[in-house]
Amino acid sequence: MLTREELTAASEQAAGMLARAGIALTEAEVDAIEVADFGLSRLEETGLQIVVYVNTERVCAKELVLFPRQLCPAHRHPPFDGAPGKEETFRCRAGVVYLYTEGEPIPQPEARVPRDGVFTVWHETVLGPGDQYTIPPDTLHWFQAGDEGAIVSEFSTQSRDDLDAFSDPRVQR
Amino acid sequence: MLTREELTAASEQAAGMLARAGIALTEAEVDAIEVADFGLSRLEETGLQIVVYVNTERVCAKELVLFPRQLCPAHRHPPFDGAPGKEETFRCRAGVVYLYTEGEPIPQPEARVPRDGVFTVWHETVLGPGDQYTIPPDTLHWFQAGDEGAIVSEFSTQSRDDLDAFSDPRVQR
Repeated sequence: MLTREELTAASEQAAGMLARAGIALTEAEVDAIEVADFGLSRLEETGLQIVVYVNTERVCAKELVLFPRQLCPAHRHPPFDGAPGKEETFRCRAGVVYLYTEGEPIPQPEARVPRDGVFTVWHETVLGPGDQYTIPPDTLHWFQAGDEGAIVSEFSTQSRDDLDAFSDPRVQR
Repeated sequence: MLTREELTAASEQAAGMLARAGIALTEAEVDAIEVADFGLSRLEETGLQIVVYVNTERVCAKELVLFPRQLCPAHRHPPFDGAPGKEETFRCRAGVVYLYTEGEPIPQPEARVPRDGVFTVWHETVLGPGDQYTIPPDTLHWFQAGDEGAIVSEFSTQSRDDLDAFSDPRVQR
């Protein structure tokens, strides 16, 4: 569990990064920034700050804010309700993000991961501002920001965070 | 038909507006900016400049760039392939956009429209930076930028521009 102070500090830091990138939010959106620590209580290392713009049965759009070297742990979006699972496109707006998916592993990855983490896919894609990558449904992926942090727009089908399947059994979403 | 010079000028103007708003594009995306005059050859008045980030069978995301007072003519997105038609969320990133949909008409609208145009819905929503509005499928809508132009992110289901139903029979998309 994060303390109230940690949550507030993370939310304010994310709001500051978005403002500096010229991404306008309403006051209500700033107040609603989600701080996800994935149940690990190590937010600096593993976590995401999220602004959900829209999430209907058909379409979802978000901004993901990552602090320097913060990572989102490996997961996949399985099929549900007869549909093939969430399809998502990550578009980097600011900073750099290292994205890892199934495929040929890179010998010298840019990411630095905790020793006790569960990371099985190491095909690396480096996304700078204006770069993007589409993750098919039910495909394992994880990502980490570079040394300056990152802002990533996510365009996807419906988000159902409760259905995400994480590789690390300790993760709680 | 627009001349090659008009297309190039519009594309460069749109790229400049996006750059000033801090929205990073790749060189290939700048080269691929779509300039739509809706077949009317009056781009300053009726037109859109469009960057398509992604458009799969399930998800579409774009930036729409509108020059000062430029308008997108009234249209709806009808059902196709057994689905209910395109659902789209407009999120204003910069400038102001006046959006008109079905519903209670406003007595003194902010928009200025050509006399020979076809505009039957006048329920007004004003979107500034950080404001957004979701248009249900098959719902008539049109919009115009304010005096400084506007940049609008569109998050939607699949775009099939060829299926859009415009109110003005002269419009060609």
